[in-house]
Amino acid sequence: MATYPIRTVAVVGTGVIGSSWTLLFLAKGLNVIVADPAPGAHEKLAAWLKHEWVTMERIGLAENASLDNYRFVENIDDFVGQVDLIQENGPERVDFKRNLFAHLDAISPKDVLLISSSSGIPSSQFTMDCKENPGRVLIGHPFNPPHLLPLVEVVPHPGTEESCTLRAMQFYRSLGKKPVHIKQETPGFVANRLQMALYYEAYSLVSRGVISAEELDITITSGPGLRWPLTGPFMTNALGGGGSFRHLLEHIGMSAKPWVEDMRKHAFDLTPESLNTLDESVQSWINNVDIGQVERERDQVLLDLMESKSKASSLN
Amino acid sequence: MATYPIRTVAVVGTGVIGSSWTLLFLAKGLNVIVADPAPGAHEKLAAWLKHEWVTMERIGLAENASLDNYRFVENIDDFVGQVDLIQENGPERVDFKRNLFAHLDAISPKDVLLISSSSGIPSSQFTMDCKENPGRVLIGHPFNPPHLLPLVEVVPHPGTEESCTLRAMQFYRSLGKKPVHIKQETPGFVANRLQMALYYEAYSLVSRGVISAEELDITITSGPGLRWPLTGPFMTNALGGGGSFRHLLEHIGMSAKPWVEDMRKHAFDLTPESLNTLDESVQSWINNVDIGQVERERDQVLLDLMESKSKASSLN
Repeated sequence: MATYPIRTVAVVGTGVIGSSWTLLFLAKGLNVIVADPAPGAHEKLAAWLKHEWVTMERIGLAENASLDNYRFVENIDDFVGQVDLIQENGPERVDFKRNLFAHLDAISPKDVLLISSSSGIPSSQFTMDCKENPGRVLIGHPFNPPHLLPLVEVVPHPGTEESCTLRAMQFYRSLGKKPVHIKQETPGFVANRLQMALYYEAYSLVSRGVISAEELDITITSGPGLRWPLTGPFMTNALGGGGSFRHLLEHIGMSAKPWVEDMRKHAFDLTPESLNTLDESVQSWINNVDIGQVERERDQVLLDLMESKSKASSLN
Repeated sequence: MATYPIRTVAVVGTGVIGSSWTLLFLAKGLNVIVADPAPGAHEKLAAWLKHEWVTMERIGLAENASLDNYRFVENIDDFVGQVDLIQENGPERVDFKRNLFAHLDAISPKDVLLISSSSGIPSSQFTMDCKENPGRVLIGHPFNPPHLLPLVEVVPHPGTEESCTLRAMQFYRSLGKKPVHIKQETPGFVANRLQMALYYEAYSLVSRGVISAEELDITITSGPGLRWPLTGPFMTNALGGGGSFRHLLEHIGMSAKPWVEDMRKHAFDLTPESLNTLDESVQSWINNVDIGQVERERDQVLLDLMESKSKASSLN
């Protein structure tokens, strides 16, 4: 497959994720073909892009970036000859993606990368009807919202060509993203599994009455969560061991084994009943919070944080 | 128990945690009596406090704060009559703490709060020899380093007087900390359990070859980790559900159940053998990183982050 630069991208589906990708691609100076069959999708997208452009100006626009470089089309079929890559953001349903990718594979030139934003469905589950070139299909799962958060999980299926995986990694990197290569099609990929591990222990502790939901959140936001934008699990462990991962695990790690055993004994089981009980504790707090203010202040501090972090070359 | 303000604090043990508490207490304008039997402990502490004072100046000193308001003493016994609270930071050994607390309880006026910084040993395991007033013993577990990170886990044992728990919460809050009340003596308390939940899934994924250690760290530091200083598990879920925790769990939560099942199937088991394999992957990356630079840049961005966050009144 040729590795000429990617200049024109198609975005299929303009929900929260598709709109955000469109904004990012435009800010990075790409041309974007956008399609979404939902009534009013075009107007909604146009208004949102206009409203959010100021955020991208703050972060920094590519030289040739313009809010005018996109075209909303009725039917993507007429435009696949013009694009280098298709980023799909349809519903999270295997049957839907299976039909859509079979169709995109049939009509697109063979070197167009076909990438799904799916947050948890491995692409091997929806490539069986791709008769032309299933080797250019893979997952590029962003972290919401893609125009702000750098993470993209690149997940090939066993038949994905290595050159396509590399090209996708290179493409996302060229946009200033932090792509990671997931080497096996694990359910939930990596980021969502890590989130779920944390969340399920949180659900367990609050369900058992060990701590209130609000105070549990504080243990993260005022404790270990303050480090996690800066150093991940392994670097945090290694720093705790004076540069040696093994040192930390042999000391603190071993003495923490009984904690882990106790956590497994009390593992949370998500059922309609357990959700009812948990939701009561959580919502009795959340209902008294000004959610709009939390969102505004979160976004403000997040931008400050990413700006501060961008000056620290050793932090990922 | 009287609830007059706490003006004089004793710090027993001046390792990493005890030194950091001393720095914080001084910066907040308290008088501190410090004891540590290790040879050279006094000189080491003095040099460290002097070096770190500039950080506390940046964060903001109390009006009457002074680096001179501490006294390093040979024997704490002669000074317990002058203090309102003792913050213990000795070795993490049950037998050690059992002897020390029996002694402190025997010699201190009955209204002096006796608080251990233990990161995982519940105080009911070392109060059985406290004959005077075991009701004033509890855990105040800071998150390292206490002079920077706001979290303090306040963990009473079943016999701790409620007024003592409240007084400890109030004291830490008066220092600008974010104390949380752990209502049951869970092994590992709360913050360390949440950390372990995340770390063990990270260990599992890297051990299984799903992703490299460096890229796993990126999935946190460039993905969900960017949100966790701002919103914890419950608020993050609620925001994802448009203000409704239940909404998110009924939709995304339920479809994530197979991910959680798969995680439990592949749960990491920490043994000398599994640690060997894991350490090889981790250290092959860490050995090529300038650890000193990572630490400096982490601390810099952390201070920026806390400054930015302090302006956001809705974030915990």
